Amino acid sequence: MSARPFLKITAPLNGLLAAVGLVTVAALTAREIGSTTRLSLELVLAAIWAVYVLQLVDTLIRRRATDDRGLTPELVIDLMAVVVPLIGFLLAGSPDQGLYCGIWLLKPLRHFTFFRMLGRVVARAAPNLVGVTSVFGIVLFGASLIAYLIERDVQPDKFGSIPLAMWWAVTTLSTTGYGDEIPMTFAGRVLAGLVMMSGIGIFALWAGILATGFFEEVRRQDFVRNWQLVAAVPLFQKLGSAAFVEIVRALRPRVVPAGAIICRKGEAGDQMFFIVEGRVSIQTPSPIPVELGPGSFFGEMALMTGEPRSATVSAVTEVSLLSLYSEDFQMLSSSNPEIADVIRRTAEERRGGAGQG
Amino acid sequence: MSARPFLKITAPLNGLLAAVGLVTVAALTAREIGSTTRLSLELVLAAIWAVYVLQLVDTLIRRRATDDRGLTPELVIDLMAVVVPLIGFLLAGSPDQGLYCGIWLLKPLRHFTFFRMLGRVVARAAPNLVGVTSVFGIVLFGASLIAYLIERDVQPDKFGSIPLAMWWAVTTLSTTGYGDEIPMTFAGRVLAGLVMMSGIGIFALWAGILATGFFEEVRRQDFVRNWQLVAAVPLFQKLGSAAFVEIVRALRPRVVPAGAIICRKGEAGDQMFFIVEGRVSIQTPSPIPVELGPGSFFGEMALMTGEPRSATVSAVTEVSLLSLYSEDFQMLSSSNPEIADVIRRTAEERRGGAGQG
Amino acid sequence: MSARPFLKITAPLNGLLAAVGLVTVAALTAREIGSTTRLSLELVLAAIWAVYVLQLVDTLIRRRATDDRGLTPELVIDLMAVVVPLIGFLLAGSPDQGLYCGIWLLKPLRHFTFFRMLGRVVARAAPNLVGVTSVFGIVLFGASLIAYLIERDVQPDKFGSIPLAMWWAVTTLSTTGYGDEIPMTFAGRVLAGLVMMSGIGIFALWAGILATGFFEEVRRQDFVRNWQLVAAVPLFQKLGSAAFVEIVRALRPRVVPAGAIICRKGEAGDQMFFIVEGRVSIQTPSPIPVELGPGSFFGEMALMTGEPRSATVSAVTEVSLLSLYSEDFQMLSSSNPEIADVIRRTAEERRGGAGQG
Amino acid sequence: MSARPFLKITAPLNGLLAAVGLVTVAALTAREIGSTTRLSLELVLAAIWAVYVLQLVDTLIRRRATDDRGLTPELVIDLMAVVVPLIGFLLAGSPDQGLYCGIWLLKPLRHFTFFRMLGRVVARAAPNLVGVTSVFGIVLFGASLIAYLIERDVQPDKFGSIPLAMWWAVTTLSTTGYGDEIPMTFAGRVLAGLVMMSGIGIFALWAGILATGFFEEVRRQDFVRNWQLVAAVPLFQKLGSAAFVEIVRALRPRVVPAGAIICRKGEAGDQMFFIVEGRVSIQTPSPIPVELGPGSFFGEMALMTGEPRSATVSAVTEVSLLSLYSEDFQMLSSSNPEIADVIRRTAEERRGGAGQG
Repeated sequence: MSARPFLKITAPLNGLLAAVGLVTVAALTAREIGSTTRLSLELVLAAIWAVYVLQLVDTLIRRRATDDRGLTPELVIDLMAVVVPLIGFLLAGSPDQGLYCGIWLLKPLRHFTFFRMLGRVVARAAPNLVGVTSVFGIVLFGASLIAYLIERDVQPDKFGSIPLAMWWAVTTLSTTGYGDEIPMTFAGRVLAGLVMMSGIGIFALWAGILATGFFEEVRRQDFVRNWQLVAAVPLFQKLGSAAFVEIVRALRPRVVPAGAIICRKGEAGDQMFFIVEGRVSIQTPSPIPVELGPGSFFGEMALMTGEPRSATVSAVTEVSLLSLYSEDFQMLSSSNPEIADVIRRTAEERRGGAGQG
Repeated sequence: MSARPFLKITAPLNGLLAAVGLVTVAALTAREIGSTTRLSLELVLAAIWAVYVLQLVDTLIRRRATDDRGLTPELVIDLMAVVVPLIGFLLAGSPDQGLYCGIWLLKPLRHFTFFRMLGRVVARAAPNLVGVTSVFGIVLFGASLIAYLIERDVQPDKFGSIPLAMWWAVTTLSTTGYGDEIPMTFAGRVLAGLVMMSGIGIFALWAGILATGFFEEVRRQDFVRNWQLVAAVPLFQKLGSAAFVEIVRALRPRVVPAGAIICRKGEAGDQMFFIVEGRVSIQTPSPIPVELGPGSFFGEMALMTGEPRSATVSAVTEVSLLSLYSEDFQMLSSSNPEIADVIRRTAEERRGGAGQG
Repeated sequence: MSARPFLKITAPLNGLLAAVGLVTVAALTAREIGSTTRLSLELVLAAIWAVYVLQLVDTLIRRRATDDRGLTPELVIDLMAVVVPLIGFLLAGSPDQGLYCGIWLLKPLRHFTFFRMLGRVVARAAPNLVGVTSVFGIVLFGASLIAYLIERDVQPDKFGSIPLAMWWAVTTLSTTGYGDEIPMTFAGRVLAGLVMMSGIGIFALWAGILATGFFEEVRRQDFVRNWQLVAAVPLFQKLGSAAFVEIVRALRPRVVPAGAIICRKGEAGDQMFFIVEGRVSIQTPSPIPVELGPGSFFGEMALMTGEPRSATVSAVTEVSLLSLYSEDFQMLSSSNPEIADVIRRTAEERRGGAGQG
Repeated sequence: MSARPFLKITAPLNGLLAAVGLVTVAALTAREIGSTTRLSLELVLAAIWAVYVLQLVDTLIRRRATDDRGLTPELVIDLMAVVVPLIGFLLAGSPDQGLYCGIWLLKPLRHFTFFRMLGRVVARAAPNLVGVTSVFGIVLFGASLIAYLIERDVQPDKFGSIPLAMWWAVTTLSTTGYGDEIPMTFAGRVLAGLVMMSGIGIFALWAGILATGFFEEVRRQDFVRNWQLVAAVPLFQKLGSAAFVEIVRALRPRVVPAGAIICRKGEAGDQMFFIVEGRVSIQTPSPIPVELGPGSFFGEMALMTGEPRSATVSAVTEVSLLSLYSEDFQMLSSSNPEIADVIRRTAEERRGGAGQG
């Protein structure tokens, strides 16, 4: 837990450092730069390299603390970011030394949770993606072969072999269309039209497969998020079994517009709430209302005691909530005596405390 | 409420004005226009500017009426639409004065609810969109670096530095393909093919993420629309608590084909209906049937009294309905005595009235 | 109903005729064709025109039979397909006469149900599509304005006015990339890269909105299809009220792999089945089994009498079914005495008949 | 079943062979290769051809074993892969002999289940895909006709006939943009802009339709996968009727994070689990825990006997599970006495066995 705030700070900083480094690498390859500019650019690279050495040391220390072993991707990236430019400096000639810093391209992969998500989506959709790529390959080769047969006599310099025709085919199938190789015959142009349409179709397949994959992944992540929300409630932390999953399954989503009252003081409480998105305001006896944001929960006393609500809660912004109904919870309790025990004990402890439910 | 009809008129008018203004700005930059044409075009700009001054005044008056404070985006846009061209007129030289009216580009952002929706979709999908953009950047830099290494000796004028190679890479990765920089070596062309395929893949990722985002947003908006439909029923307006949310959750969607009978006079009524889309016709004793459109509701008497339907209702067009079943409603009433009270009183009041249920 | 088989034959024929006609129109514009070829091509056009006159007559006759009034889209298309080429023949000079047959482009719109579906999807997604198109326009104008400012001094012939710059912008934003106008300055190329990425983003938005629209439409069509399946059961045709909708809602989808047994002779029957897709085989006492395809239903006796299944039914192909459970049906009957009446009478009638249930 | 492991080995090998063969075909068309290289390339082709002869023989033997008749697609592909190059060798002249091996392009179609899935998605979406292709054709012809009218006088060599204009239109509508034909007039450029936007729209339609199709197909495949999971449980294999489908329908999905405990020794067991993805660990009395992977099931004793869990099971990785609740199962048993019988007998048999439930 203690490493997370630090990580949150360094993720954008890390991205910025890598971006600056790569821009410097790019600038170093320009011919018109003077030797002073070159020197200062090289100093920038050296400075970034020094930061990366520190980062590697930090990673190694944290690894020892958490007793990890083996090469994690994080460690590999941190190691390469330090070692590869060093090798470049020692072995390569002067103008190309900077290029070895291109390895810093991998640095952003270290933090983003997106890359892990993308990995899961791609891994799950892999058979379909491989399939579409095969279709791409088959159409590519087929189109090249036919274009070669059609155009080889008309434009021997551009379609005189299948590899040459394949350059035209990939340019056309991806709808890039450089325009350096264009079929001249009527049959060749009809083929080109069909290849362009196939390109769009293959593109659409890719998009369709990835859209489906993302949709499924987002739904899975919702479940994991709900799990984390439930896991944050002290009451439920004492449970450690399948009943926990049941509670997560029993959550029901709800969107409340800004300004709506979610529960009223004195009402019978039949549910507790988890805030997924947005903010709610709790009217306490003190003049300044308390606000709760994403990840918070309220109304949990009602689940255990069935007492009326002790405060009015209203939505400050549009709020996305998850409700846990007392019926669902009681049903779970009746079949899992463990839950009932935990509730009775917690309710007794908290009766004197400051619950909002 | 009083401002809405006015707004509905000005939204397309506003778009039209901005479009005319921008076309005028564009026309003014053409060199071949004569001085008479130039003058008349400038008069058009002046006229539109005058309308925008009026609109700014109107916005300020309405703001005072509704007691808003601070800079709303609407006010900022209205202010800039007036002030920026004025600055241009005072400070800039003659040929470029008109360009300052380019700020009117922002005017359409003032009205469309679409931009707010787009904002929400993008905000929610932001981590993924940032992630894909990072992938774009990484592939872009990586491709530039490799293309530079491969092609720099063959085409030093086109691939002689990473920034030059990057221009080729962005043109290829986005499958735009200007054709001004084309790899000549075999390795360069294989790289180009891979870059084109990556481009299509990144494009598909973007599409997949946004499709998922839009789907989720449309589902959310359905909930908000249902909320508004329920909020328009006088009976429910007397409720102001969580019970309201429960009613919204209890609604069940249904599509009825054109011509189908939705409920028959004399039948037992077990549900009330909200019209989401399409039109229904109510057969009243008078010869001309009453038609109801989106946002209307009918059959609400059945919820309270359980009396038989007082009229036959049929679908004029394909109709999308939401049903509130009396079982659901009674279940809610039994747990919320507040609802039961409201119902009894309303039913007594309306017994002599002209309900359609 | 009698017109449908005729329509099914003419829809592809119609498409073929239009395609042949349009290819002929295209061929007529080629310069190198001789006068004999020209004459024969013109005869083809005349022949197709004659067929279209017959089709117009047929449409008019069918209209009288069904007592339609007003201009249906079908009639407008048929009229224009005849009248426009006639006007061309009478008024236009010789080489361009054939072009008027280009109106036959509209002929395919006459039949495809796809165009109606597309219309509904587009109509429902209209606000979002208009919104994205506005974004397209705003980015287009903004990019043109900035490109004009950046490049006007470097390439006055290509970026010397906003309309010229706009041609570059639309070519780039749509990732078409003709390559006739290319920014030369560094700032211009950075702008071009951003415009390409915006183009991909706008494209992805469009795809996302339309994907969501299609998904919703497919779900709606499922409901309408279920409605039609239920409406084809004689038993249910005697119902004509909201109960009908309830039956449709009570259907539950199921996919059965090829070869699986759906119900067994002598088993207690608790549901009836509608075939959405695929084929089932009913083992009758006779050696040749009866096969049922999409739109058929079986097991309806079980709904009414609760008697055991009279035959074994198995899936020949993978079958997509809808089940109506007797519990659901009985629940509906108990609240709608009308249904119960219809059932009792039908069951008595059919007891001597050949039900499969 | 016995052929499957063999198939799994040959699928990638087959793809590799075809890829090597096609690259060789492509290389043979290059002009600069010497006669030694040519000979060795031809030997590679001959070797691959020999492997394909063996594969054909294997397919024929397996066919005899399984008593298949008629031309399956697999057999057709295997036959053509052998016969077509043979014909090429016998009939064609020397330089083009290798091209006949291009037929090996079809080899990958033989194995991938993706192609069957793609076939189903395309078949189901066929009306919509045909519709969009019609829209493509209509826009293509319409744009060509208008471009011809606008540009024929300005650029007679490029837009002098509709077929010439059509080449421009297909290049633009697919956003390929070779840049060899570009409208020069103002009207022509406005048209080009509209055609590009239509191209993006049609593209988005295609993507939307295919995304919807893939989503539906993935959901169908989930059902089939669940069917297979249930079919693998010995207990259920004794059932062969509609009850089987009911069991599949009663499964409820669940995702459990890595490390979570799924069930605990001594707890009351109310469900059995099927593993869809990921791995679980069962703590047995022996020190080494047993791990189960996708396709396994556990906890089935609880369904029959209601006895407490005999072992603790925890998730090793994130696990995707399907639960069958004993309530659901008991409900099914009560209506299908057949199930109850099977359970009683199986439970008695297994009481002495090593169930994990």
